[in-house]
Amino acid sequence: MAEVRVHNFSISLDGFGTGEAQTADAPFGHAGERLHEWMFRTRFWAEMSGNAGGTEGADHMFAVRHGEGFGAEIMGAGKFGPPGWQDDPDWKGWWGPNPPFHSPVFVLTHRPRASIEMEGGTTFHFLDATPREALEQALGAADGLDVRIGGGVTVVRDFVAAGLVDHLHLVQVPIVLGRGVRVWDGLEALDEAFDVEATSTVGGVTHLTFTAKRADRR
Amino acid sequence: MAEVRVHNFSISLDGFGTGEAQTADAPFGHAGERLHEWMFRTRFWAEMSGNAGGTEGADHMFAVRHGEGFGAEIMGAGKFGPPGWQDDPDWKGWWGPNPPFHSPVFVLTHRPRASIEMEGGTTFHFLDATPREALEQALGAADGLDVRIGGGVTVVRDFVAAGLVDHLHLVQVPIVLGRGVRVWDGLEALDEAFDVEATSTVGGVTHLTFTAKRADRR
Repeated sequence: MAEVRVHNFSISLDGFGTGEAQTADAPFGHAGERLHEWMFRTRFWAEMSGNAGGTEGADHMFAVRHGEGFGAEIMGAGKFGPPGWQDDPDWKGWWGPNPPFHSPVFVLTHRPRASIEMEGGTTFHFLDATPREALEQALGAADGLDVRIGGGVTVVRDFVAAGLVDHLHLVQVPIVLGRGVRVWDGLEALDEAFDVEATSTVGGVTHLTFTAKRADRR
Repeated sequence: MAEVRVHNFSISLDGFGTGEAQTADAPFGHAGERLHEWMFRTRFWAEMSGNAGGTEGADHMFAVRHGEGFGAEIMGAGKFGPPGWQDDPDWKGWWGPNPPFHSPVFVLTHRPRASIEMEGGTTFHFLDATPREALEQALGAADGLDVRIGGGVTVVRDFVAAGLVDHLHLVQVPIVLGRGVRVWDGLEALDEAFDVEATSTVGGVTHLTFTAKRADRR
């Protein structure tokens, strides 16, 4: 059965998935690239960027799961573009003509627009919908494959809080951001619904995996 | 040179070192004993409780450092007793006639009282002082040995924020408490002043060690 998964979701020690003051030049605000440096060092990232090399240890093993077995992604408006992208009719996301999704992508926004077909199999659809409604559409489009919840932080939180996520992979980076958007808010007692594992690596990060306990996953 | 250290300081995934609604029966509030179960399983804890057995792996190795090389402890009023202990002239702490400190203990309180000498080398002193003033007294009393900052959360935070801590050991437990007192508040960019390491263990917890970078420790 198709699953709903979150992968490679980086947070600081104090739980922030993004910093404060996001702009077009700084999509993660004052966090800069520090939340994702662990990933840039992996072969997963090198290959996605068309390069050779990269580490092939535990960080890579966790990271590659981000790309395997997905038929659709759901993301928030804040991931698709900088604040105000809805006012720019030509905005087609951060990722150039051939985005790395290669599947239907459902963008949650209160100001939906017509779908955009990109190269390489990615089509952006825009939905003003609840998490459950959006997931229903994404599961239909995924054709039996899994659905990735791609972020940002509030979208991940909303889907987890609604009981819609089967597997959540957080990557805790050894920095203290102090401010931004915290992934834990509103998720008290999350450990009762999930089996939790922690794996620290020589890369200096700790991978936290949450696997839904319920027999009836969703 | 004597160091200032924090050890075995347990926090939830979302950073709470204690839960909400602390009482005499529930010193960690709604967290119950869940923050410390990892420690109860170690030989360190068994020996301190006068029992045999206990695990001897990584969790034990981290835990025993709590007891080695200290000549004094500093703790907050909230660790010494339940809310209102200052109104009970007979209150002598949670720990019975022979407390596990075996050294001078400096209790920070705005309502100091006369020192209390206990069995086994523990003497409780009561100070209305800043972190730096309290530390000066504790270092003097420690006779060249290290000083432990024993908590609670706000005391640890205050000493770390004041740049007075050389080594901080946090233990992240796989629960999401949602509310309580958070250790991270006010510590933005802590990673700039410390080398940070993360070590997850088969016990299911992640040990985070912060070692002060500055050549001139304190």
